[in-house]
Parts: sequence; C-alpha cells; structure tokens
Amino acid sequence: MVVVMKEDATREQIQNVIARLMEENFDVHQSTGVSRTIIGAIGEKRGLDTRKIAILDGVHEVLRITEPYKLASRTFHPDNTVIRIGEVAIGGDEVVVMAGPCSVESEEQIDRIAAEVSRAGAKILRGGAFKPRTSPYSFQGLGEEGLRLLREAADRHGLLAVSEGMDRSKIDVVAEYADILQVGARNMQNYDLLRELGKIRKPVLLKRGMSATIEETLMSAEYIMSGGNYEVILCERGIRTFEQYTRNTMDISAIPVFQKLSHLPVIADPSHGTGIRDKVAPLARAAVAAGANGLMIEVHHEPECALSDGAQSLYPEQFVRLMQECGIIAEAIGKRLPQSRPVAAAGS
Amino acid sequence: MVVVMKEDATREQIQNVIARLMEENFDVHQSTGVSRTIIGAIGEKRGLDTRKIAILDGVHEVLRITEPYKLASRTFHPDNTVIRIGEVAIGGDEVVVMAGPCSVESEEQIDRIAAEVSRAGAKILRGGAFKPRTSPYSFQGLGEEGLRLLREAADRHGLLAVSEGMDRSKIDVVAEYADILQVGARNMQNYDLLRELGKIRKPVLLKRGMSATIEETLMSAEYIMSGGNYEVILCERGIRTFEQYTRNTMDISAIPVFQKLSHLPVIADPSHGTGIRDKVAPLARAAVAAGANGLMIEVHHEPECALSDGAQSLYPEQFVRLMQECGIIAEAIGKRLPQSRPVAAAGS
Amino acid sequence: MVVVMKEDATREQIQNVIARLMEENFDVHQSTGVSRTIIGAIGEKRGLDTRKIAILDGVHEVLRITEPYKLASRTFHPDNTVIRIGEVAIGGDEVVVMAGPCSVESEEQIDRIAAEVSRAGAKILRGGAFKPRTSPYSFQGLGEEGLRLLREAADRHGLLAVSEGMDRSKIDVVAEYADILQVGARNMQNYDLLRELGKIRKPVLLKRGMSATIEETLMSAEYIMSGGNYEVILCERGIRTFEQYTRNTMDISAIPVFQKLSHLPVIADPSHGTGIRDKVAPLARAAVAAGANGLMIEVHHEPECALSDGAQSLYPEQFVRLMQECGIIAEAIGKRLPQSRPVAAAGS
Amino acid sequence: MVVVMKEDATREQIQNVIARLMEENFDVHQSTGVSRTIIGAIGEKRGLDTRKIAILDGVHEVLRITEPYKLASRTFHPDNTVIRIGEVAIGGDEVVVMAGPCSVESEEQIDRIAAEVSRAGAKILRGGAFKPRTSPYSFQGLGEEGLRLLREAADRHGLLAVSEGMDRSKIDVVAEYADILQVGARNMQNYDLLRELGKIRKPVLLKRGMSATIEETLMSAEYIMSGGNYEVILCERGIRTFEQYTRNTMDISAIPVFQKLSHLPVIADPSHGTGIRDKVAPLARAAVAAGANGLMIEVHHEPECALSDGAQSLYPEQFVRLMQECGIIAEAIGKRLPQSRPVAAAGS
Repeated sequence: MVVVMKEDATREQIQNVIARLMEENFDVHQSTGVSRTIIGAIGEKRGLDTRKIAILDGVHEVLRITEPYKLASRTFHPDNTVIRIGEVAIGGDEVVVMAGPCSVESEEQIDRIAAEVSRAGAKILRGGAFKPRTSPYSFQGLGEEGLRLLREAADRHGLLAVSEGMDRSKIDVVAEYADILQVGARNMQNYDLLRELGKIRKPVLLKRGMSATIEETLMSAEYIMSGGNYEVILCERGIRTFEQYTRNTMDISAIPVFQKLSHLPVIADPSHGTGIRDKVAPLARAAVAAGANGLMIEVHHEPECALSDGAQSLYPEQFVRLMQECGIIAEAIGKRLPQSRPVAAAGS
Repeated sequence: MVVVMKEDATREQIQNVIARLMEENFDVHQSTGVSRTIIGAIGEKRGLDTRKIAILDGVHEVLRITEPYKLASRTFHPDNTVIRIGEVAIGGDEVVVMAGPCSVESEEQIDRIAAEVSRAGAKILRGGAFKPRTSPYSFQGLGEEGLRLLREAADRHGLLAVSEGMDRSKIDVVAEYADILQVGARNMQNYDLLRELGKIRKPVLLKRGMSATIEETLMSAEYIMSGGNYEVILCERGIRTFEQYTRNTMDISAIPVFQKLSHLPVIADPSHGTGIRDKVAPLARAAVAAGANGLMIEVHHEPECALSDGAQSLYPEQFVRLMQECGIIAEAIGKRLPQSRPVAAAGS
Repeated sequence: MVVVMKEDATREQIQNVIARLMEENFDVHQSTGVSRTIIGAIGEKRGLDTRKIAILDGVHEVLRITEPYKLASRTFHPDNTVIRIGEVAIGGDEVVVMAGPCSVESEEQIDRIAAEVSRAGAKILRGGAFKPRTSPYSFQGLGEEGLRLLREAADRHGLLAVSEGMDRSKIDVVAEYADILQVGARNMQNYDLLRELGKIRKPVLLKRGMSATIEETLMSAEYIMSGGNYEVILCERGIRTFEQYTRNTMDISAIPVFQKLSHLPVIADPSHGTGIRDKVAPLARAAVAAGANGLMIEVHHEPECALSDGAQSLYPEQFVRLMQECGIIAEAIGKRLPQSRPVAAAGS
Repeated sequence: MVVVMKEDATREQIQNVIARLMEENFDVHQSTGVSRTIIGAIGEKRGLDTRKIAILDGVHEVLRITEPYKLASRTFHPDNTVIRIGEVAIGGDEVVVMAGPCSVESEEQIDRIAAEVSRAGAKILRGGAFKPRTSPYSFQGLGEEGLRLLREAADRHGLLAVSEGMDRSKIDVVAEYADILQVGARNMQNYDLLRELGKIRKPVLLKRGMSATIEETLMSAEYIMSGGNYEVILCERGIRTFEQYTRNTMDISAIPVFQKLSHLPVIADPSHGTGIRDKVAPLARAAVAAGANGLMIEVHHEPECALSDGAQSLYPEQFVRLMQECGIIAEAIGKRLPQSRPVAAAGS
C-alpha cells in the first residue's frame, strides 16, 4: 500500500498514519518530497480494507500495490497449472472443448448430442441438471436424473462430464456424477458455495460473473483455493455493458489478462457470451485466437425444440465446421485442437 | 409478444410462425401492411424464451409486451403494498429508517449504536452476523451470537431488527432472531435462496444486484412471491458502471421507476451505494427527495475501528443531522419522517 | 507518481527507472522494503502518459497521484467559484434554475414558455437553436433566427439566456445572443471547440459526456480554463449504463464528488438524464437534495407537439409545483430557491 | 412501430392513437385480442421520436421495428460494399492492414516505420497530425507538416495514407494529403463534422465512440452517407465498461453484428481497444478470427520514446509475427492476408 498525504498534511497527521500502519504490522517507509509526503507500507495484509487508512486525517489517497489474491496469482506460481483428468489436460498446449446441450432433457437427447460432439473432437460433455432461471415459471432442469443421464452418455462416448451445482446442498450430488463442477456466473460471489467447493477434490469451472471484474473473479478462485482445492478453471462468458444487441459483451481481452495475472487455465463460453447462434462461431474462433485454453459450446440437434437456450445452440454440423476452423487457428499460435478422435472412443 | 416478419418473408414462413404460436396457446392476430407482416400473440405464457420464435425463418424480430413478472407488478395490484411489523408500516406515508453498524462486533458496540439510532428516529436496527466478503481473509461475522446480540439490542431500544441470510442453510437461524430477512446484492439471483424465502412468513428486504436491471430485480421479487411470501421490500444500493470514484453508482431514478412498475415498498442504501462516508448524506437526502419509502444507513460510533465498512459509516451526530434534513425533505413531498421518539422507547 | 517495482526487479532496472524519471525532471525518492522497492516521483508533469514508465523493465505498476487537472481543482482554489451574470449568481447559496423548451420553435412558443418559467422562479431561459440529433432526418433547429427569438423572449421576461454551440463555427453567433454558452454532452471532448471557448469571455455550461468519468469532465473544464476563461459551470446529465429503462442513469453522487474535487458550480439536467417526463421531478428534487447549485429543466406548454424531446418536457403546472418542492428542499440544507419574482420582471 | 395499448385502454384512447398515427402518414393496422389491443404502424418515418406516441393516454409501450438507418442497412443493400483505392480493396476477401505510429513525429520516424510495416504486408500507413488529447498539456501533433511527412513516407513505400480530421476546419487539409479520413471515437457524434464528410469524395474511417451502441454507430455512418459519400469504413475500437484493467473493452461481437446489419466494411483497432502492448496481438488475431475486414495497428520502432501512446505500440518484429499469425487465421475462414509484398513497392 502507498499512502499519499495531502500537500498541507501536518507532521502530526503523518505520524498518526505511520503509527496506524505499524499497528497493522506493516514495514513503513516515509518519502518526503517538495510538495508531498508519500508513505510506503510493505507487507500488506490480505483482506485489509484500505479505506480504513484512506479516511485518516491528512490522507489524500491510498493506492494498493499487492494483488489481493495470492494462491491464484502468477507472481507466486509462475508456471501454468495443467489440470489432468484421465487423458485430458486442461491448461497445456491443447485447446480442450466442452460441448453439449444447455439442459439434459432426455436420455435420447443427451446421447444423440454426446455422439455428435464426441465425433467432432470435444473431450467433455456439458449439460445442466439444476438450472438457474431468471423466471420462476421456466423449466428448472431434471435434477439428479439429469446428472445420471449425463454421466451415462459421457461414458458411452468416451467423454468427461461437467455440470453446474447451484447451491451448497447440490455439491455432493453433482460431484458424484460429474468430473468437473461448474459455478455459474450468478453464483460467482456465493461465498458459502465457494468455500464448500474448496473442500472437495474435483476441478471447478468458475464462470466470471456478468458484472465481476477480472480481479474479483480471481478473488473468487482464491476462495476455492484457500480451502485446499487448487484445480480451478476460469471461464469468460461475457460481461454486462450498455450494448444490448448481444446478450452480454464477450470480454475477449480478459483471456490474455487472466493468463498474465494467474497460472490457472482460462476457457471461453461464447454461447452464453453472445446469446445468439450466429455469433457463437465468430466469438469461439476469436477466443481461440486470443489464446484460450478451451471452449464451452452449446450444441443441440433440434435447438428449436430445446427446453432452454435453444436460440444460442449450434447445430451439430455448425459445430463440426467450427472445430475445423479452430483447429487451424490453434496451430497459428502454436497450440493444438485435434478434431478426429480414435474410433474406439465412440464405443468405449 | 409481437412478431415482426422480414420484408421478404414468404407466406409459408408466416404460416409456420402462426402455427408455432398457436401450439404455445397464444391468441394470434395477423396484420399485413404494405411492406411487412406483423403478428400479435396475446396471452403470453410467462417463462417462454422469446428467442425460440426469433430464430424461426422469416422472422425479423420479436418484441415482448407483457412484463415477465406478475405478482410484483402494479398492473395486477394497483395499490401500494404496506408491510406492517408491530407499529412500523413500510410502504405508506412514513419514510422508515433502518440504521446500525455493518457488522455486529460486540454487545457493547451494538447496544451503543442501537441507542444512538433509536434516539435519532430510526425504527429498525441493522447489523450483519454472516458477512459475505470478497476476500476469504476478511472478518466473516460473529454468526448466531451476532444475531442474538442484535436482537437484544433492538429489543432494549424499541427497534425492529434486520439481518442478512446469505445461504439457504442460514435462513432459519436468521428468521429466529430478525424481523426482516435481507438478501444481499450478490445473492439477488441465488434462486434456491429466493425459493426458500418464499416459504417463510417474514418480510424480505431484497437488494438489487449491482448489475441487475430493474426488471431482473422484480423477477427476483417474483421468485419469492411465487412461493407465497408477498412481503418483499425492494432496495436500491448502487449499480456497477464505468465511473469508479464512488464504489457503485446509486441509480436514484430506479426509485420512482420501481414504484411505477411495482406496488412493493422501495428503500435506498446509500452507504453501500456510495462506499464513502461524506457522500452518504447527500445521497440519502436525494433518495428521500425522489420518493423512497425508507433508508438503510450504516452508523458506527468508532468507524475507524469498525471490523468492516468503517469508511462508509456515519458518526452518530452526522446521522442525527441527516435525519433532521430528511424530515424536512419528506414533508416537501407529502411524507413524514418523525425524528424524536417517545422517551419510553429508549428504556423499553 | 509512485512506481512500484516487481519483487524480482534488479538493481539495474531500478536505476534505469530512476534515471528516466530524473530526465523528466521529477524529484525522485526511493523506498526499499523487504519484498519490493517503491519509487516516489514528485513534481509530476501534467500531460505525461504514465504508461511510458509502466512499460520499463522491472516495473510492476505505476500509480498516479496528482489529479491531472489543476485550474479546475479545489486543491489550488479552495473557495467556491461564484459566477455572476447581472443579478444572478451561480455557485453561491441560491439554487439557480434554467428552464425552457428543448428547441426554440417559434416566437409565440418561446415567449409563452419564457413567461411561464419566469413566473415560477427560473432565472435563465434555455432553448436550442442548433440541435445535435442522432438522426440526420430529424429537426435540426432554427439556427440564428432561433437565437434571436430566444434573446428577445428572455429580455421580455427578465431572464438570462443559455444555448448550445455545437461547433467552433457557431461559437460567435451563439455568444452574440446568449449569456451562457452550452457545450453538449456529445461535444464534451471536442477539444477544438473547448479551446475556442477558452478564448471567449462568457460563462460556459459544460455537460458531462454520457460516458465521461468525473475526472475526464474536469479535464475538459481544464481545457477551457487553460485558455483563460475561468467561468465554467459543470452539468451532470446522466451516464450510459446497462440499465435501459431510463434514457441515461443520473449519477447523483457526481454532484457532491464534483463539488469536493472542484470549486466550479455544479448543476443537474434531469430532463436529459432520465428522458421521461414523470421521472424529471423526482430526479430534480434529488439533485437539489444532494446539493446541486442549479437545475436545467425542459418545459413546454404543448409537449405532445414539441419538435424535439417533448416526452421529457414538463407541463408549466408541473414545473411550478416542482419549484415549490425544491424550494423547501433547498432550505433543508441551508440553501435558497426563491419562487416568486418581483412583478416588474414580467413586463421589463 | 407497434403500439401496445394498456389492458384498460378505452375505445376513445385507441381511436386517438390511431388518429395521431394517421396524421404522421402511417399505414395503421389494429389487432384486438382478449386482453389488449395492439396497433401496427407501417411506413415508419425515419427521425420520428417514438416517445411522442408513447406519452399518449392509454399507451402501454411503443416498440420500434424498422432500423432508424437506411443507407447503411444491409436490408436495402444486401451485397457487401467494397471500397477500392488504387489497388487496395477494403470489404472483400482480403484483410487489409493499416499500421503506423500514433503520431507523426519526424521525417525519419515516419519513414522508418513506413518501411517496416510495408515490408510486413500493411497496405495503408496511419499517423496522426492533429491529435485529440484528454489533457491540454499533452503533445497535440505536428499539424499540416505531419500530414506532408505522412504522405511522402506512404508514397516512398507504396502505401496509402489515413489520418484523422478532428474538426470541420481540418477536413480540407487532411483530404489534401490522406487517402482515407478518419473520424475519431470522440467525434463519432460530431454531426457538423459528419455532414461535412458527407460532401467530400474520399473514404471515411468511422471509429465507434466508446459509449456508442452499434445502432448509433450506424446512424453516424448514415449521416455521412445521407450527404452523398457512400464510402464509410466502420471501426470497432473498444467500448467503456466497468472493467478497468484494459483501457477499453474490445467488443469483438460487434464485428459480426455490424456485418449482419450493414454492408459496410468493418475493421478493428486493438491498439486503442486495449491500450496495452501485450494485449494488442491477441485481440488483433481475435478480430481477424471473428471476420474483420481489416486491422488498424500502432507500430513504433522506439515506443518508449513515442510522443503519444507508446505503451500500446508494437515493435516492428512483433508486428511481423502478428501478420504471419493473422495470415493463417484469415485462411481458416476463407479470407486472405498476404504478408510479403512485391519488392518493387518499397521503391515506388
């Protein structure tokens, strides 16, 4: 922390600020210039509200230095975290694709889509069982039955499975069926949930809240990691801005920024990020071109009949083409996105 | 819903859209103009994703008519909802003030502050026991012990009590001690929590999420109300914008807008809305001038020592003065904010 | 400026940064802590792009101290600036109201409205002659003829006149007729225009751009002031946010923030800030309650026939009532807003 | 326009709305349902303020149909506009790159950079001569001398030239030297400037304002086109959001959206869009992957000494590498971005 004193701060005020900083166990350095005094406070305690110093008499402003997160920071962990689940490695050279319907609707539906996305090169099957819906009158998901169908379809097609746990009480059941637990954007700052996820030993896919800053997203990762679960995957899925043509505004810059500040893998979800089918492919390609470690894409063979988010789901043939384009783009920047999969996988 | 067809939509496409709308049980009206056909679909089902119609061939755009909420809407409930708890009525002519510390820290602290705010005219004591904090390293509240201290202090000074329940599992314990349950801004779209609050029979204070639209806030109220709990108090507490001088940007316009769209009482929380002590009073006055039914204000007798949010807490003497100013402002628009309270209250 | 070095910055990198800072004539102070070195650079040159230091090797981040504006800053001019034009003083204890139609449409229209607003207590007549319109097909204003009609109506009813000059080439003609020159929100960063306004000797009403930060608005004031024209009135008129129910989101907090950072008078324009007639009065009252030095309000006797912005114009009787309410509110915080005016004024 | 009446609207109110619409020459269709009446008004006049209908008695809301722009709309011009200047075609299959320094600083500087970017495959040289700066104390550009140096360097290296004209009075001089006139983001709604650009016969590069919606940007293009100049290039350069890590938030989705709504070419400027050198390449690649017709990139051989925006300028070797990556990405989606140029060009 750097405390900038007012130009007319008195000697007494300066001494008072120094005393307060020392009480908080800071290593204090005073630097007196012609017009102002600046106080450097090294050894910043995490979790201190800097406004407590800012309101002391004679203080012009307080500037924070250290990032408020540590476990999630690249400063303390320079190498990329690579999360390995079976044969899949997220965070390395391969761009890993998660795909599937918004919601699991029936055995036939999830099986059909699993077959399609597996064939096209996806490694992980997505599908919601507990759906957070803005309207209490909308379809709310199949619950545990949906998770079971998801698991079975994933297994049948050689895929891993990811699904959302909206609430502390759902964590155990989701963890029983899925390989990766997803935290939805609306829950990114549900701290009880984050703390609970810190206790399990399965990777967590943390979606950036639609009004969360990059720093706040990393703080939420820190919550999970401070509980002992270091396998967190960050996910950019669009932020809320004044532009309303797309549902959200994909913050593609956040991908390289997250990767600079943190060692955690970063994926992008252009389906929720745009909310419009014909914008999904351009933004998916953009995310890969910007260096994303993976994608999460909604695919449905009959989007016009989907019980949720049909309007943003790709048709299987659109997904195949997107995978091919992204494969070339990945190579342009020294990554890989293998499309065809060993034939055995489909029957495993 | 109004479906606007493209200028070059075919007769077949128009018929297809009409068929789909009829399947969804709409009353359909076709209006054919020189350049376009417009299809009016009356009897809109709540919870339908209009994007499902938007993606049909030949459709230019779909315009929604009916508000997606009903129980919260003034259309279906023209008179103001007045929530009565003991002698306090929220939503009527009186501006009701809730005040107290950010967190309950000790018996002495909460008692001292309760005495001060009661004397100045507040009717409800606020104080957090379970604190949602962006950093996992910050003070997290006293838990149930904090609730007990809050209740006792409130009773001693003739006040009601309001406190936040962050998670489904905390609802019961908060409801045991508090008269009003608060839903924090970060939980405004925690639907499991909202559903749980729909089952209890105590008023809920619902804070607008920092990136929630007015409509989404009303949808969250609808979630609670659809469970059978009709006593919801809306609270404007600042939205996230590009302006970073204040912590959030108080959307004062939202107060009259909420009151136009809904019959529910609307209060304002300028402490969280601005995050800076010397901006709390101007914005509190502004909220009353704009017609708010109440205020929620953080007050602390030693803000520089507060364990949370000290920088935005008023000193008791600032609070007294603010109450006097707001009393005059309330009268300017035909409301009341009584400052002095019967002597008996302090000792009850 | 404070330069925070990386934890692993080398001695050479630190020396290099210091050398660069000294080249730029800074007074440099080095403060070496256990984990990091912090370099204080006092005597910051205005207009320096701090990113030039930020990109040097070994630099973690650069924190700016001094506000980039000086003439507009309260630091260098602690007393309020009071702008006097004839008998009107803007920036003192009186809340000064500017009112009138969006556009001057005809002699009869502007005269009728001038009479109404003068009677209700307004001191300054507003009316556009050159209209910036988002559509090239909309009414663009009466031009110089409109200015003449505005001037005459103002004189007839004992009012001052304010009008917008959109472009450098219009400054002279607007200055010929109006007492105050308005810079519209879309032109807040039209630097050629600002420089031109720095050369004239009439007060300038500077509207905050809809995506301008508070600091950027003060920088635009600085542009005008650096040319020698110190009479600048700041105007909050709503910022662009994700909330679309109102046309813009009035940032009422900006009023006390501007007043803290700057000595210039601050007014509010709730007509453009909300864009909806029935929200104008609540927000006008809120602005006065928050401490605004004045208001700018659109009034029209036949808003449904207005050639521009009729939907946000008050009827004269609504304006009268608003003035009465604001008069009481002003007194609640130690200001004045006289409603009735000497009878002579009307016929002067 | 579709006018949705209130559920309790009277027959008289409905008749009154219809009468008003007919006065405005609309073709009116009434559709009466069980609960509401909807009135379709076809033949919408461009430039009508729909709020004038919205405030009539009995109206619930007014929904706009037709886009308010016409000349810029793909509806009325289904094929892509391809702008040809010499051998360069913007808007076709080739991704056209504009590169160069933020400001022209000296003959040696602009020549050196022109040589580098030409060799790497850029077709157009950028360089500012009149600089809009937020601070009145910053470097403001070399003026006409800068334009002359830009022209000469462009000619020496077989490039076209683009530069910004900030003000109506600068249009002629910029047009004398540059092949393309740039409108800066801050001037996107400077309507006098836009109108002036409608009269010239050189292509205009229109940057999206940082708080301008996609629709408003197209309206500004419409302003220029309505004057007779149909050669407008749209440029996404980042919008203002709550996220402050990057200078602006590049709205990559806007690229395919602009291309859907309009036939005009769309380029991206990741240098201003991110403001940070190491984010420029990822976002440039993302823009190409999303389908942009071109890029505008700041390049400087000594960015640490640049008089403006050095922190966001690429080193020439970074630019070369970026061009190679973008070449592969362009091919992945069926476009081209030729890197090597005929040797003759350098000496032409």
